[in-house]
Amino acid sequence: MNEKSKLWGGRFSKSVDPRAEGFTSSLSFDRRLWREDLEGSRAHVRMLGRQGILSPDEVAQILDGLEQVEKELETGTFPFRQEFEDIHLNIEKRLSELIGPVGGKLHTARSRNDQVALDEHLYLRQVIEKTAAGITALQEVILGLAQEHLGVIFPGYTHLQRAQPVLFSHHLLAYFFMLQRDYERLRDAWKRADLMPLGAGALAGTSFPIDRHQVAQELGFTRLYENSIDAVSDRDYFLEYLFCAAVLMVHLSRLAEEIVLWSTTEFGFIELDDAFATGSSIMPQKKNPDVAELVRGKTGRVFGNLIALLTVLKGLPLAYNSDLQEDKERVFDTADTVLAVLPVMAGLLSTMKVKKDRLAQAVRQDYSNATEVADYLAKKGVPFREAHAITGRAVRYALEKGKYLLDLTLEEWQSFSPQFAPDLFAFLAPAAVVAAKTSFGGTAPERVREQLERAAALLAERREKTGMTENQ
Amino acid sequence: MNEKSKLWGGRFSKSVDPRAEGFTSSLSFDRRLWREDLEGSRAHVRMLGRQGILSPDEVAQILDGLEQVEKELETGTFPFRQEFEDIHLNIEKRLSELIGPVGGKLHTARSRNDQVALDEHLYLRQVIEKTAAGITALQEVILGLAQEHLGVIFPGYTHLQRAQPVLFSHHLLAYFFMLQRDYERLRDAWKRADLMPLGAGALAGTSFPIDRHQVAQELGFTRLYENSIDAVSDRDYFLEYLFCAAVLMVHLSRLAEEIVLWSTTEFGFIELDDAFATGSSIMPQKKNPDVAELVRGKTGRVFGNLIALLTVLKGLPLAYNSDLQEDKERVFDTADTVLAVLPVMAGLLSTMKVKKDRLAQAVRQDYSNATEVADYLAKKGVPFREAHAITGRAVRYALEKGKYLLDLTLEEWQSFSPQFAPDLFAFLAPAAVVAAKTSFGGTAPERVREQLERAAALLAERREKTGMTENQ
Amino acid sequence: MNEKSKLWGGRFSKSVDPRAEGFTSSLSFDRRLWREDLEGSRAHVRMLGRQGILSPDEVAQILDGLEQVEKELETGTFPFRQEFEDIHLNIEKRLSELIGPVGGKLHTARSRNDQVALDEHLYLRQVIEKTAAGITALQEVILGLAQEHLGVIFPGYTHLQRAQPVLFSHHLLAYFFMLQRDYERLRDAWKRADLMPLGAGALAGTSFPIDRHQVAQELGFTRLYENSIDAVSDRDYFLEYLFCAAVLMVHLSRLAEEIVLWSTTEFGFIELDDAFATGSSIMPQKKNPDVAELVRGKTGRVFGNLIALLTVLKGLPLAYNSDLQEDKERVFDTADTVLAVLPVMAGLLSTMKVKKDRLAQAVRQDYSNATEVADYLAKKGVPFREAHAITGRAVRYALEKGKYLLDLTLEEWQSFSPQFAPDLFAFLAPAAVVAAKTSFGGTAPERVREQLERAAALLAERREKTGMTENQ
Amino acid sequence: MNEKSKLWGGRFSKSVDPRAEGFTSSLSFDRRLWREDLEGSRAHVRMLGRQGILSPDEVAQILDGLEQVEKELETGTFPFRQEFEDIHLNIEKRLSELIGPVGGKLHTARSRNDQVALDEHLYLRQVIEKTAAGITALQEVILGLAQEHLGVIFPGYTHLQRAQPVLFSHHLLAYFFMLQRDYERLRDAWKRADLMPLGAGALAGTSFPIDRHQVAQELGFTRLYENSIDAVSDRDYFLEYLFCAAVLMVHLSRLAEEIVLWSTTEFGFIELDDAFATGSSIMPQKKNPDVAELVRGKTGRVFGNLIALLTVLKGLPLAYNSDLQEDKERVFDTADTVLAVLPVMAGLLSTMKVKKDRLAQAVRQDYSNATEVADYLAKKGVPFREAHAITGRAVRYALEKGKYLLDLTLEEWQSFSPQFAPDLFAFLAPAAVVAAKTSFGGTAPERVREQLERAAALLAERREKTGMTENQ
Repeated sequence: MNEKSKLWGGRFSKSVDPRAEGFTSSLSFDRRLWREDLEGSRAHVRMLGRQGILSPDEVAQILDGLEQVEKELETGTFPFRQEFEDIHLNIEKRLSELIGPVGGKLHTARSRNDQVALDEHLYLRQVIEKTAAGITALQEVILGLAQEHLGVIFPGYTHLQRAQPVLFSHHLLAYFFMLQRDYERLRDAWKRADLMPLGAGALAGTSFPIDRHQVAQELGFTRLYENSIDAVSDRDYFLEYLFCAAVLMVHLSRLAEEIVLWSTTEFGFIELDDAFATGSSIMPQKKNPDVAELVRGKTGRVFGNLIALLTVLKGLPLAYNSDLQEDKERVFDTADTVLAVLPVMAGLLSTMKVKKDRLAQAVRQDYSNATEVADYLAKKGVPFREAHAITGRAVRYALEKGKYLLDLTLEEWQSFSPQFAPDLFAFLAPAAVVAAKTSFGGTAPERVREQLERAAALLAERREKTGMTENQ
Repeated sequence: MNEKSKLWGGRFSKSVDPRAEGFTSSLSFDRRLWREDLEGSRAHVRMLGRQGILSPDEVAQILDGLEQVEKELETGTFPFRQEFEDIHLNIEKRLSELIGPVGGKLHTARSRNDQVALDEHLYLRQVIEKTAAGITALQEVILGLAQEHLGVIFPGYTHLQRAQPVLFSHHLLAYFFMLQRDYERLRDAWKRADLMPLGAGALAGTSFPIDRHQVAQELGFTRLYENSIDAVSDRDYFLEYLFCAAVLMVHLSRLAEEIVLWSTTEFGFIELDDAFATGSSIMPQKKNPDVAELVRGKTGRVFGNLIALLTVLKGLPLAYNSDLQEDKERVFDTADTVLAVLPVMAGLLSTMKVKKDRLAQAVRQDYSNATEVADYLAKKGVPFREAHAITGRAVRYALEKGKYLLDLTLEEWQSFSPQFAPDLFAFLAPAAVVAAKTSFGGTAPERVREQLERAAALLAERREKTGMTENQ
Repeated sequence: MNEKSKLWGGRFSKSVDPRAEGFTSSLSFDRRLWREDLEGSRAHVRMLGRQGILSPDEVAQILDGLEQVEKELETGTFPFRQEFEDIHLNIEKRLSELIGPVGGKLHTARSRNDQVALDEHLYLRQVIEKTAAGITALQEVILGLAQEHLGVIFPGYTHLQRAQPVLFSHHLLAYFFMLQRDYERLRDAWKRADLMPLGAGALAGTSFPIDRHQVAQELGFTRLYENSIDAVSDRDYFLEYLFCAAVLMVHLSRLAEEIVLWSTTEFGFIELDDAFATGSSIMPQKKNPDVAELVRGKTGRVFGNLIALLTVLKGLPLAYNSDLQEDKERVFDTADTVLAVLPVMAGLLSTMKVKKDRLAQAVRQDYSNATEVADYLAKKGVPFREAHAITGRAVRYALEKGKYLLDLTLEEWQSFSPQFAPDLFAFLAPAAVVAAKTSFGGTAPERVREQLERAAALLAERREKTGMTENQ
Repeated sequence: MNEKSKLWGGRFSKSVDPRAEGFTSSLSFDRRLWREDLEGSRAHVRMLGRQGILSPDEVAQILDGLEQVEKELETGTFPFRQEFEDIHLNIEKRLSELIGPVGGKLHTARSRNDQVALDEHLYLRQVIEKTAAGITALQEVILGLAQEHLGVIFPGYTHLQRAQPVLFSHHLLAYFFMLQRDYERLRDAWKRADLMPLGAGALAGTSFPIDRHQVAQELGFTRLYENSIDAVSDRDYFLEYLFCAAVLMVHLSRLAEEIVLWSTTEFGFIELDDAFATGSSIMPQKKNPDVAELVRGKTGRVFGNLIALLTVLKGLPLAYNSDLQEDKERVFDTADTVLAVLPVMAGLLSTMKVKKDRLAQAVRQDYSNATEVADYLAKKGVPFREAHAITGRAVRYALEKGKYLLDLTLEEWQSFSPQFAPDLFAFLAPAAVVAAKTSFGGTAPERVREQLERAAALLAERREKTGMTENQ
């Protein structure tokens, strides 16, 4: 009988096969939860004391022992043993080694099923907070950039074709508001992370006179699971985080794609700082946007992690099944990814150089003012469809001549329609095109200024509150 | 020049290739959005009138024309034409046929980019409401079942092994609370569906003096997109619905799996009503739980739809790109699936027969009262680890003898530990095991009754409110 | 008792609920398999005749009846009835209506489980052949383009930064060889599609003296399933096709992305033909590469379909379960997508205009000849790391001066290293850089010519064979 | 200037930001490829020598240095440095430290882009071979079990309802043939892994007079990439492995699901060996099939890894992009998972106990012989639909009486049809039902014996060959 089999006492007559032992152990990854495990155990044992289930002396001994365990874990001297399956049993076993049989009383009125669920909730709440902070920091950088570049006109694209000029700040703020939704979504996800499972036991609750509300309060939970079977079967909270991370990565991958594009020779709208680019060991001229490429690439793993946990959960009968053990690595990997991506994107954006001269030149060298021409005619009473057709012909003419619309002479214009008059030219300069878009949310400077104010207000509001709960 | 090319006026000199025309047309699926398109157009044209952009007469003519279009669509006489790409142009073209050139003024100050986004938001809000209603109806059925079967004891499982007996109502309520989270999540998703995009134009806003707030108010939106580029690039709302649906399907697939299991010869806990089962054309004895199997199977397509749209959005530069056209079919298929699954599960559950005799017998024929034996010893002062081991040995002994724990004599018990006394037997009956689990959320009858009350209150609260917004 | 319940005879005492009937019916999508169903039934009934299980007269009647059914299906007069669940029962029922009770003998010695599997294999073999043909046609277009543009030099990219100039034909041929692997993979997938399941019965085989080899031979199958349970449980063949399609879409999405990039104002390397581009109803200057965007976007649905079927199959006990009914729509949608994408990409590529002047200019306006400078020094004995560093400094200098490397004077070069001599300039022209890459598979014209020959030979070889099997 | 920036020489004027350095480094995971990297480097340097690009002395020095590096890596004394990004640069830098500047000549005529691709191919070939060996070993265990239990009758299921009795060996062999397809698929995937990329350089080939065929031959590759751009952009080989693994996991998850079911109290068909089961720290009676549950659960991560890499590759322009760096961890994790799952499943199966008495009893206690009753009537001339209905009524009658079909008296039978005669009973015993299914691939003992022989022959054939290539 090896150590692992002994855990299960008299029912088993044989040692666990080493292949099975290695295969079923989760210690290599769930050891990351040791802080949460200790935090949960402390709250649990104090409650057991207050409820008279353990004596004050027992409580004191156990808390003392947990402190020793914590020191060992913090200093790296804790003796991890794979045969004890997971971090929870490792800590419990070590506790008993340190303080004797009373250590075994820590597990009174709880099971690993609810213990694991508690640790996961404690962990996830922290990760949500850190992710929200990372989003906020990135929003601040984007807002700063948008404030700094308010005057810069930028080619707006649809279908990656020049569509209409916009303010660069306006373009950047689109990302600010995407991130704002990411933040809101995390706040919503928080509500399902903020549910206290301990006391569900293996699945049915416990016959000990515990007080789950005490534990919840001590650990700062707002709500308790109201059904013990649900408490140990649920992994919605992890799914929600994985989804929030997936959407966040969608947004960041879009930004990363644009950074890659803007950094090309062909676009040339920005230059990445040397500190956030890499070179080539073979091509001396290369300056690669590989930080942005990696951000874009890492989207794949986050999508994969989401689909992985969805797959795990599909069709699983209640209550706990070992399949659920597969949840942690997917979430750890996702959190590690997201918490690395957010600051590196902030760093990249805050150090990149916007090439204003190039942009000023670019917005004059396309046909993205054509809509204004059609509008010009429409305002002179030409039906829009006809105005659109006339303008289309003028564009085709200009393309063939190798000219831009601003370069056509009045005579040339009038060959397409007698309605064109000298006042036309005032509408065609990029700044005029931008200034005209005064609808709410539009790209006219005064509208973008409103957005900047709104964005600043959203961040200010957030700074005043603390925690995800109060801010609801 | 075919019809389609003519749409784009003078810039093009050639007809669209028929392969390309069929490939790029979205009419076959976006025609489903005709009601939303008309609703949005009406609000838009009224605003244009109030803002003086169109004359009262023009507004009246257009509204009149839209009514004719609506009648044609409702009665199936509307002449759809693929060469007009999508439902939006089909309606606009038909309007102009019906009322003349003034029909062209409907598109003043908007673009298809913001128009599509608006239609999608209008559609999604309805789908969210219907899905929420479907969830509520299913919760009601589950609550009814749980109320009806309050006395029935059921084997609780972990690892699909008999773990501890629970009340069947308790087990059912686990699903009630899962669905409660699904409902809450939809309410959260609603907040991002409830954003008004119209007025964003192609991407930059418009130079017409529109009032987006009016349109939002008329259409019942709480918030507006504050950035026009974001308004036409965003598909977060669709992603959120796809995710909510995926988690809902996870829950329903777990229930479906259990129904399949419970319907087997081996479990035999329920019998499906003939109205919700199917037979075999070859095996006369078969009664298949294929409704439940299909629910479980349909989880796949919902996961697939989520990953499909995530894939579409990854790395897409701003603002609108045709890739986004791929969003609708994924959402339609998901909504159709979920809105079919919810009532069919409600029907299946409300008609199935719970085989109480079989359950009463089953809960006496396992070793799921073993934890009580260990607890019994622990309460007599035996350290839990030792109590666990003693019980394990007794279980092994009983298994070898082909007996259950309730069948062992006191003598047999005492051969494992002298602590066993006649009072042991009172703890071992399933009802006693269940009654002991009195912790909050546990399976003791009084606790389950609390859950039933809580569940009823949640549903009652929901009935009092109308719409997703007010209930926030 | 409604019609559907009657199918299952005496075991059921109640009608199917209409919700369940609609939910479980697959007729709306599996009616596409009617040709395969008839083909399989004919082979089956002929075998039953040859084996003496049916009389010659019965066989004749049934074949006659199937012909009538076929005509009805072809002419659209077949009376589909949802209450008969699927296409298989619809055909069987209709057959009996047309020819009387003898029609019921068609189902002798088979079950819907093996019948469905057979229809799917017959369908899939055709789809594989069509997909392979579509790939071949696209390869031909790419090869043609590569032959036509052999002299054109093109900027080669890594990290979307200019890396080294290459022949445009070389770049195009990269896609030829990707598609070659797609073709090979389909041939491999064919082997698993080419397995005959009929005769597996419900799952255990049949007691009738059938000859499965006869059926296989008549239907052109090379192999039979050797295990009847496997035959009705297996969906590997569908998974493989979904995967082949997913990789194919990966390749096409990469090409589509490049087409979108090349069509931008900024790159400007190609101009799409008006027949394969679309305009904007609002912006007269727009010419959008939306065919390419849609190809890229449709990658999402193909990935989604793959993950959907994987999800369906995960953890499904043997043998047939209704979850498997979810397989068909995923495969149909994938095949429809791929078979639409391949010809539209061929059309787009064969009509687009390569802007040679722009390319000729572009390859002179970057620093992608820097590697040659480092190599130049290395060949003069400067250690490569030092050569790389010297060149990097020269690139930085040139960037600051706004010059390209070809524009630096000898004096300027010598300020970085005395090793530079007048012969340097001969190495720096794009054509020289390209011509130097003479390694096998490299971009030097003679190497690319070899690739063209190899590609032509691969296609010629394919034309000589017919079918997927012989060509193995 | 930190170390990392120095790698790129003169083009950069600033140190890499520590956030970016950590973010872009792949050393933490690609260090696993050190053996492959050394193997590839040796073949490369020998070829450089044979081609006269390096002198014999230089080749000797480098090979010597690589041997020293190898020793350091094997003994764990190699000084890894994150600032050198990846394993490739770490090895190159260390080589130069050990043998001086000549070490820099190793990188002549290659780039990291083709070097990484080569390492991945070398790695993958090994992983495919190990996976194939693991599959073979599992097939051997299954074949052994099937041979051992040839006489055991087992309930065959469809829809998890008892359908028709089968031989347990027949059921097991269904998995054998699934695994056979997995093996075949890996052999097919091998063909795309067996392509040699080195010599592609950064993307365009190289101007050094290398001989790629020599390298291919030395490293045992059958084919070379014929296009250098394709060679550095391709990741099809990884995708194929991920897919093969996903289908393999589908199969194993189905087997795992069945093991979980068979281990329940309710089914009770097998008992897992104590060495391959785990207990509960709280419930003394528990014996959990958590090895099987974990196998089932790990399916999720394998699906996730596949979708992750597909996502990474979608829409990526040619040639190398840093996104591709995300490929390795997905493949490593998949290979680790599969190579752990295969032996643990083999161990579980080879040690589990089949409960023959329970099975013998089970197959008599259901209605899965009903098809035989209908067939009995059909053979007496009753039309099958009527026969099916009569049998259905008899089943309903028996269910109501609480009897099985074998328990009904002749009198009872005749109340349903006068055609029933005493010979009926001979057809109803499970063994008779099984023996009747004599179609090819069916469950009759002689047919299953054929399958056993075929399976043994497939394995024998495999043993005679070595390697994946020759066996084609």
